Amino acid sequence: MEELVEIGKRATIASQQLAHLNTEEKNRVLMLVADMLGKHESTILAANAIDLEQGRQMGLKGAIVDRLALSGERIKAIADGLREVVQLEDPIGEIEEMKKRPNGLLIGKKRVPLGVVGVIYESRPNVTADVAGLCIKTGNVCVLRGGKEAFQSNNAIVRIFHEAIESCGLDPHMVQLVQNITRESSVAMMKLNEYLDILIPRGGAGLIQAVVQNSTVPVIETGVGNCHVYVDEAADVKKAVAIVHNAKTHRPGVCNAAESLLVHQDMADNVLPEIGEALLKSGVEIRGDDATCRLIPEARPAKEEDWGTEYLDLVISCKVVGSVEEAVDHINRYGTMHSESIVTENYSHAQYFLDRVDAAAVYVNASTRFTDGFEFGYGAEIGISTQKLHARGPMGLKELTTNKYVIYGNGQIR
Amino acid sequence: MEELVEIGKRATIASQQLAHLNTEEKNRVLMLVADMLGKHESTILAANAIDLEQGRQMGLKGAIVDRLALSGERIKAIADGLREVVQLEDPIGEIEEMKKRPNGLLIGKKRVPLGVVGVIYESRPNVTADVAGLCIKTGNVCVLRGGKEAFQSNNAIVRIFHEAIESCGLDPHMVQLVQNITRESSVAMMKLNEYLDILIPRGGAGLIQAVVQNSTVPVIETGVGNCHVYVDEAADVKKAVAIVHNAKTHRPGVCNAAESLLVHQDMADNVLPEIGEALLKSGVEIRGDDATCRLIPEARPAKEEDWGTEYLDLVISCKVVGSVEEAVDHINRYGTMHSESIVTENYSHAQYFLDRVDAAAVYVNASTRFTDGFEFGYGAEIGISTQKLHARGPMGLKELTTNKYVIYGNGQIR
Repeated sequence: MEELVEIGKRATIASQQLAHLNTEEKNRVLMLVADMLGKHESTILAANAIDLEQGRQMGLKGAIVDRLALSGERIKAIADGLREVVQLEDPIGEIEEMKKRPNGLLIGKKRVPLGVVGVIYESRPNVTADVAGLCIKTGNVCVLRGGKEAFQSNNAIVRIFHEAIESCGLDPHMVQLVQNITRESSVAMMKLNEYLDILIPRGGAGLIQAVVQNSTVPVIETGVGNCHVYVDEAADVKKAVAIVHNAKTHRPGVCNAAESLLVHQDMADNVLPEIGEALLKSGVEIRGDDATCRLIPEARPAKEEDWGTEYLDLVISCKVVGSVEEAVDHINRYGTMHSESIVTENYSHAQYFLDRVDAAAVYVNASTRFTDGFEFGYGAEIGISTQKLHARGPMGLKELTTNKYVIYGNGQIR
Repeated sequence: MEELVEIGKRATIASQQLAHLNTEEKNRVLMLVADMLGKHESTILAANAIDLEQGRQMGLKGAIVDRLALSGERIKAIADGLREVVQLEDPIGEIEEMKKRPNGLLIGKKRVPLGVVGVIYESRPNVTADVAGLCIKTGNVCVLRGGKEAFQSNNAIVRIFHEAIESCGLDPHMVQLVQNITRESSVAMMKLNEYLDILIPRGGAGLIQAVVQNSTVPVIETGVGNCHVYVDEAADVKKAVAIVHNAKTHRPGVCNAAESLLVHQDMADNVLPEIGEALLKSGVEIRGDDATCRLIPEARPAKEEDWGTEYLDLVISCKVVGSVEEAVDHINRYGTMHSESIVTENYSHAQYFLDRVDAAAVYVNASTRFTDGFEFGYGAEIGISTQKLHARGPMGLKELTTNKYVIYGNGQIR
């Protein structure tokens, strides 16, 4: 793919400049983009209207159209997001753990940009601005490969970035959007080791698996969340009902929403009818095992595949288990290592769950919905990593950096 | 590959136990292995003799035979290495950055094992014990795929681990050695995403590139070092001669040895003859550009490919450059992002070099040979990462871990 090689070459050059800007210079670009997004609202909306019209002709579904659609309000939210990134502390340049070795060498770990960050994503045009903003703040060039359905909208947003960057006298290629939206360009990007330092897929499970399976560029897996709430035998019923209801219904289409409910058998009679009532009232379809179906007559029988399904919808699977150990085994088997919660007043069960569940975020007595950069206090996030290398959980600015050892000597040899 | 799937399944089970051992239990295993290595010295040497004899029949070269050969002394060094790992602080279980959010949630980052660590390596049998020791200390199961030429030696060492682990009443599958040493088993290991959390190649550039290009398991690139020393126009001549000589000749076969020398044109007359004399006296072959060959008559002309070659031998390439900027550009173009050093007394040149050279370790006035876990104060290392994700530079115990957010609530919902 010639286009991607060209993009890669320009990215390498732009990286030399961007990596060495100071925080004020980077913030100036971000503030200018934020202002210009407001001023050029009508241009962006016009581009978005073309995408939406084409989407309708192609028969895109409601949920995708909703993710694709921009409005004055949504554009303002994008601009406000950039202004929030301006407020975040710039991690670049900080030297950690500076120490003097016995031979007099002074060794420190300096935080530096990764270099060039590739992101492959789907229909949401706000990802374009969010990613570009986080990358600029951390001194990383970004190569964006958005979905075909959002192409005009993404282009309009990137043009505003370019105009702002150029009016600051800087290299606009610090933000680049792939123009050739084909399967080939996507595959070529996954093999662009020479130019990309990292590749982050943002989207559904299919996209993420395709990237993990095919990319030779190091990948950060994000976002697929088959999250569980386990209501222990020692649960507080009121907390249990509130947490399960919140985790499932607060925003069912996001990755930290609960998809599966596990209830201890000694608590099932006590809590399942009440949880069932709350969920059904909010329009949730319940797919349960036999015990669940006996206690919630409206529940439909669950199939084996339900335990491994991320519905991203008002559906929940439900299973009655014999012990906290069984709950943990089930979660480690079917979960996606995203967010898992136990509701219990029993100290040992809470500690066992925290220790033994293998996930990015493990909760006691709280909704899984808190797994989020803002909720964790890191500000904007570029995604939620569900893998173990480099970053796990919400990825903030620091996760877009690496370190470089800097060593000050005065002639030391071995 | 059936064998690897079986290994993977056993690894997953062993991981459940190993990840939750406390430090005392893990140290007990390591101390026992260290003692048993001494007691079973003759068994290991007998196995090693078979490998060496086969190697000779297969016509292995001197350097490989040297890496392969064990002796009573080398076995003692391996055992002492394990005892040193016992002394290192166990990072597992530590909770960092615990903080209370405005809504009362208490959120901390708990350090946990990666899970299952795969290592593909070549002829050195000590890697077997080093890796197994570091992995046990960090609660990680290891799957070892050593070179065919060291198979009997590796098996003998792993048998001692198994005996020690079993006599502690633990699952011996926390250390597993691939028995089927074929290209197929190597490829299968690179696709073992279901069971391996990370894959680390240790060996020559060919092995490492093969793993990077083919693995879908996340890889940590290690060890290839085309390291430079740049002697600036403002260098102290004595320091320059000592550092270049040390970086090249102290141990030429290792990754942090210098492979290339850059000298500022205004310093060349001053320093190159003296450096040349010191290097030639130690038997170093110099491959230089025209300017170098004029100043060091014994130098042979360098070809373009010399600038990108990691000799791992008593050979050095040498080029005269016009400025610190040119030196940095050359290093960023031909280097492998391992270890790079500037010799200068000029403050701005030193800062420029530290800022602009893109490598794991960047030095002022010191030999590149210090890039090493022990020299940096981290104790034993599992390799030196030359990539940017997860770990960069010497990888100690902490780099074999990941984090898990643990969140203590009291009923919080969004």
